[in-house]
Amino acid sequence: MSVLENIDKLFAGEPRSVARAITLAESGGPKAAELMRSIFPRTGRATVIGITGSPGAGKSSLVDKLALFYKNEGLRVGIVCIDPSSPFSGGAILGDRIRMSTLGMDKNVFIRSMATRGNLGGLSRSTVDAVAILDAAGYDKVIVETVGVGQDEVEIVKTADVSVVVLVPGMGDDIQAIKAGIMEIGDVFVINKADREGVLRTQKELESLLSLAHRPDMWNPPIVPTVATESKGIEDLAAAIERYAKYTAMADGEAIADRKHAIARWRLLELLRERLLADLLEKNGAEKALEKLSANVAAKQIDPYSAVEELMSRDH
Amino acid sequence: MSVLENIDKLFAGEPRSVARAITLAESGGPKAAELMRSIFPRTGRATVIGITGSPGAGKSSLVDKLALFYKNEGLRVGIVCIDPSSPFSGGAILGDRIRMSTLGMDKNVFIRSMATRGNLGGLSRSTVDAVAILDAAGYDKVIVETVGVGQDEVEIVKTADVSVVVLVPGMGDDIQAIKAGIMEIGDVFVINKADREGVLRTQKELESLLSLAHRPDMWNPPIVPTVATESKGIEDLAAAIERYAKYTAMADGEAIADRKHAIARWRLLELLRERLLADLLEKNGAEKALEKLSANVAAKQIDPYSAVEELMSRDH
Repeated sequence: MSVLENIDKLFAGEPRSVARAITLAESGGPKAAELMRSIFPRTGRATVIGITGSPGAGKSSLVDKLALFYKNEGLRVGIVCIDPSSPFSGGAILGDRIRMSTLGMDKNVFIRSMATRGNLGGLSRSTVDAVAILDAAGYDKVIVETVGVGQDEVEIVKTADVSVVVLVPGMGDDIQAIKAGIMEIGDVFVINKADREGVLRTQKELESLLSLAHRPDMWNPPIVPTVATESKGIEDLAAAIERYAKYTAMADGEAIADRKHAIARWRLLELLRERLLADLLEKNGAEKALEKLSANVAAKQIDPYSAVEELMSRDH
Repeated sequence: MSVLENIDKLFAGEPRSVARAITLAESGGPKAAELMRSIFPRTGRATVIGITGSPGAGKSSLVDKLALFYKNEGLRVGIVCIDPSSPFSGGAILGDRIRMSTLGMDKNVFIRSMATRGNLGGLSRSTVDAVAILDAAGYDKVIVETVGVGQDEVEIVKTADVSVVVLVPGMGDDIQAIKAGIMEIGDVFVINKADREGVLRTQKELESLLSLAHRPDMWNPPIVPTVATESKGIEDLAAAIERYAKYTAMADGEAIADRKHAIARWRLLELLRERLLADLLEKNGAEKALEKLSANVAAKQIDPYSAVEELMSRDH
């Protein structure tokens, strides 16, 4: 039975239906588009929390503990993990299972890793779709966690209602390296592993960086120290997230509207890009032509731009 | 005078011409395509070195010291830095200037940061183009350095002749988090900040991870300890890079051919995606329609998939 026939089960939050719907969305194509259109009216109720930061900052532990906190509050939590490294090994799926068993495999917690899996770069699109599906399925909090911290990941986290940036003490270089991006992205900052040396220095550095930022929404991002492995600071983090979510809901001024517009525009462009490419490659013989031209480019018999010209002109 | 009129200056490695050519390539469009087509026959001579790793691993110092090493060997070095965080602040350009003055601003070292700058996601495309320009301009070594470590960044680094992954001691989580991807990406591994505690443990962990990997090219990636800030281990790194470059040049077997084919295919898809979107948005009124539909999606008056349908059907 198809996902679309069982859409009521999806709306009821039945985990297998949710999983199937996400798989369908990942695959793309007209069925996926139909699914996304039908769930759209049900979206917009969840608080979507984006969590990013360097590998090694302890994001996974933090996300697990935050999810556990919500679960114990009687809420339903969805976790979408963006892991560009996983397609190669299938490691992500195993990872999901381990985390599921920590968090308790029940109707109230759902974990899904998104990976490229050799698709045509629709990771951003399918991640945002997965979030919408969890939202429509009645999950109260949807946490989007990135393993990588690249361009796409930053864009995806920016689509969340609240974006959390996780740092660790003593990573001065880290702050320097990502400071420009951080200003824009973080609505809440976490200094995890706050039992280590250098917390105060990191906090001071971060504060001085933040004082230079001019946020269009006039929000002053809080800095929350945590020790995720010992479940310390998790309640404070949840409270900080809640404060920002309420702030934007109340303010709902121009800055928020601009942010929503920018997110919508980015989403449309992502969808367009994927759709246009899929349309082109669906044409008779296009895949074959692509393979042949790839071989020619690899052999330096043709430059990539001329090869693209050839692919584009196949139907003109 | 246009870049194309002065292409001989570019081929002579004149820094201003190189800078202008990269700017033109970034902008995209027919002129950029023409430029890339005309430089193509001159490419393929440089050794392209991709360097990635977590923020805070000391990549910039390592790259600077490696570039200095090459320069002192009488070689010309180009550095392309992919920094998704910089468009917001313009920080990258300032950073370039600081680094330029460290490395010595002369004809033999060229640094350029690539940022999204609000363009339509052509960062991968324009980075690979910048590398090709430096190659055509006669730089012997072209180093591509990523600040982020996301999906796009990993893809870009994979297009290099030699990919270097930089780790630091005591980041067990880090290795765990990115281990799956690392196997595929790293031709050479660096443990930087090797004067810190935990080098041996990190090395052992890495070795055991690498022993599980099955590389199609049968290469056994070396692990090089460095202390970039003290210029320690840089020569070893350069030697390890050289070894792999020679190995692939000699082997030139099926695995290498497959890798080149995959890179070419990825490049064609990147170019196609950008080109198709640009063509669509160039159509009369398309930008306006996009803005209007973005507003409608933001206001939840229409779902993104239906909005894309509308944009796609404008000319059918």
